[in-house]
Amino acid sequence: MTLPHLTFARRVRATPFERRVLEAGGKGFTVYNHMTLPSYFESLEADYAHLCEYVQLWDVACERQVELKGPDALQLAELTTPRDLSIIEIGQGRYAPLVDSLGGLINDPIVLRIAEDRYWMSIADSDVLLWLKGLCAGRAFDCELFEPDVSPLAVQGPLADKVMDDVLGKDLRSLPFFGFIQTTLVNTPVLIARSGYSGQGGYEIYLQDSSKGEELWDLLMEAGQPHNIRAGCPNLIERIEAGLLSYGNDMTMENNPYEVGLDKFFKLDKKAEYLGRDALKRIERKGVSQKLVKLLVDTGGPMQMRSTSTLFTKNGDCCGYVTSLAHSTKYGAALALAFLYRPWLDQEDEFFVQSDDGQQFSAVLSDHNWQPIRAGA
Amino acid sequence: MTLPHLTFARRVRATPFERRVLEAGGKGFTVYNHMTLPSYFESLEADYAHLCEYVQLWDVACERQVELKGPDALQLAELTTPRDLSIIEIGQGRYAPLVDSLGGLINDPIVLRIAEDRYWMSIADSDVLLWLKGLCAGRAFDCELFEPDVSPLAVQGPLADKVMDDVLGKDLRSLPFFGFIQTTLVNTPVLIARSGYSGQGGYEIYLQDSSKGEELWDLLMEAGQPHNIRAGCPNLIERIEAGLLSYGNDMTMENNPYEVGLDKFFKLDKKAEYLGRDALKRIERKGVSQKLVKLLVDTGGPMQMRSTSTLFTKNGDCCGYVTSLAHSTKYGAALALAFLYRPWLDQEDEFFVQSDDGQQFSAVLSDHNWQPIRAGA
Repeated sequence: MTLPHLTFARRVRATPFERRVLEAGGKGFTVYNHMTLPSYFESLEADYAHLCEYVQLWDVACERQVELKGPDALQLAELTTPRDLSIIEIGQGRYAPLVDSLGGLINDPIVLRIAEDRYWMSIADSDVLLWLKGLCAGRAFDCELFEPDVSPLAVQGPLADKVMDDVLGKDLRSLPFFGFIQTTLVNTPVLIARSGYSGQGGYEIYLQDSSKGEELWDLLMEAGQPHNIRAGCPNLIERIEAGLLSYGNDMTMENNPYEVGLDKFFKLDKKAEYLGRDALKRIERKGVSQKLVKLLVDTGGPMQMRSTSTLFTKNGDCCGYVTSLAHSTKYGAALALAFLYRPWLDQEDEFFVQSDDGQQFSAVLSDHNWQPIRAGA
Repeated sequence: MTLPHLTFARRVRATPFERRVLEAGGKGFTVYNHMTLPSYFESLEADYAHLCEYVQLWDVACERQVELKGPDALQLAELTTPRDLSIIEIGQGRYAPLVDSLGGLINDPIVLRIAEDRYWMSIADSDVLLWLKGLCAGRAFDCELFEPDVSPLAVQGPLADKVMDDVLGKDLRSLPFFGFIQTTLVNTPVLIARSGYSGQGGYEIYLQDSSKGEELWDLLMEAGQPHNIRAGCPNLIERIEAGLLSYGNDMTMENNPYEVGLDKFFKLDKKAEYLGRDALKRIERKGVSQKLVKLLVDTGGPMQMRSTSTLFTKNGDCCGYVTSLAHSTKYGAALALAFLYRPWLDQEDEFFVQSDDGQQFSAVLSDHNWQPIRAGA
C-alpha cells in the first residue's frame, strides 16, 4: 500500500513558514487546528537523533492563539478551567487544562497574559474559539474573542540558547518556563517564550505578522548555521520519551484530568467560578474508571500504529488501549502511553498489545523514567 | 518536490471504512473534523468521469453528527441560526447556516430532526459541538450534547437509485431532498437520506455502529457491481461545477451569509431568538464588502492551487482572492470561486488570477451555469 498523500486546499490553511518547510524537505504532514504541521523530514529516527544533539527550527504556526480582550476576559478564562488564572502576571504563562461541565477535557493550552485584560490561549487541536464564543454569548460577557495573526516558530534542542544569543544579542537563560518577553525581530513585534513541545529545551517565537514568516525563518536559519541547525518538527519519539501528552491522542473530551494526571496542575477550591467544579469533585471522590499508564512494548523495532491497538492481560482479558507509541533506541523498546481500565490498575504489570492488523506484542508496565516496574510498587 | 504524506495518528481519527478505502486504492486524503477524508483515488479527472456516468461509494464518516437531545434542544438549535427550524418535521432535514453574534459563519450543517426533542447537526469542518456546549452552559439550557456513533457512507452518481433498489428492495425516489427514512442494514440501525455533496444525485447512509463499517461497505459494493460501482469521494471538479460551497474554503468565520449567497435560506424575522439577528440586520442594511463570484480561468489545463491566489483587475488593482479552483474539461476552463471586493462588484468582468508562485492567468466573470457574462448583465 502506498503512503497516503495530504491534499492541500484553502481549508487546510498554509502556515507562514510552509514554503520553507517544503523547500527544506518536509515529507510527512498532519493537520492541526485546520492548518498544516510537519511530522517528519528525513525520518522519525534521524530527526530525533539530530534534535537531541543540535538545534532545530519548527513550524508550529498551527499552535493557534485565541485572544480574550476586554473587561470580562479574566472571568471568562477562569470559567473554562479549574486552574487559578488570577495569579498570572503580565509576561507569564500557565499550562491550563480546560474542562466542560462534565469534567471532560476540551483542550490543554498555555494561557499567556499579554496585557491588562488581554490573554492568549495557545491551544492544542480543537476549536477553543467556538467554545469561548458560545460561553461568552450565553453569559453576555464583555469580551472580544478572535484568532489574532500570530504564528509560533519554535527553536528547540540543546543548542537553542546559543542561537537565541546570536539573534537577540541577549541572554534569555534566566526566563522561567512559559515566561516571555515582547520584542521585535525582522521589524515585527514578536513574543519570545521559554517553551516548546520537547524535553530538549528551547523557545517559541510568536510572530505577529504572517507576511514576515519567511524572513523570520531565514534569520534563524542563518543564525543557527554554526550550530548545525536544521528544519524539524515535534518528534513523536522524543515527545513520548519526554512524557508530553498530546490532546486528541492521549486525551479527548471523553477523558477527565484525573485519568491523565493533569490534576497536579490545579486544586478544586479556586475562588473564581468554573464550569467543571461539581463534576471534578464527584470524580475526585469516586475515583477514575481508567488511567493513562506507560508501557514498554517489545515490537522488535520501529513500527507504526493506526489508532485501535488494544491492551490485554496475560489471561486474555481486554484491559485498555494504546493512545501513542514509538520505538525508542535509547530504551531498546517501543514506548507506549495507554489507558488501563480500573480493575487492573495496580494489579497487572504484564500485558500484550494487539494492533488493528492482529499482530501481538508483549508489554510491561513502566515508571515515568521508562524503567519496568511491578504493579503496586 | 515530492508530494507530502499524511501521517496517521489517533488524533486524526480513523473512519469505520478507512481500511476498505485504502484497499480500494485511496491515494489522496485530507483531514476533516479530526478524521480522514479521501480526496482522490485514480486522479481527480478519472474519478470525476466515473462519478458522472456510474455510481460511487464515498467514505464521508467525517461528516460528524452533533446530537441535541432534551427539552431545550430546539431552543438551543434555533439560537444558532437565522433559519426557522421549528417547521422541521421528524424525518426531515434542512440546510442551516450557523452564525455567531457578529453574523460570522460558524458552520453550514444539515439539521435533521430524528425524534421529538432530538436533532442531529450533520456538520462541515469545525467543532460545532464546542460552540453548542458553550452556549448551553452559558444559558443553562436542559439539553444533552454529544457526538453520537454515526458515520455517513454516501452512494453518489446517476446509478445510485439502482443500487439502493437492490439493497433495500424498495424505491426511495419519492423521498424529498434531505428527507430520510430510518431502517436497518447489516442488522444495524441506519438513517438513509436523499443527500450528498455532488450534483449527481444519491443518498447518504448514516450507520449507527462504527464496528459495522466494513460490513456495510461490502454490502453496497456487492450490490453496485452490476452498475460499475467504485470507491470514490467528494470530487473537487464536480462539486465546483455543481456550485456547492465548502466551509473553510469558500467561507469562514470571517464571512457572513450575504457574502456567499446563503441569505436565500432564511428571513431575518423568524420568531425564535437567535444570536446573529442584530448583526445580520445591520449587514443587510449596509450591504456587503465583498461577494463570492464565479470565474472562468484560462489555466490551459489542470493545475493545483495552494491557498493564496489573488485577483487583479486588468489595471492591476488587487480586487479579491480565489477560494476554490479546478480545471473542467466540460467547460474548457478552470472554474473558480472567488471573493470580489465591493468597489468592483458589477463593474469588472475581466481579471487576472495570480497564484502564490507568481503565475498569472486571465479570467472572466461567469454566471451560475459557468457561461461568461458582462458585469451588471
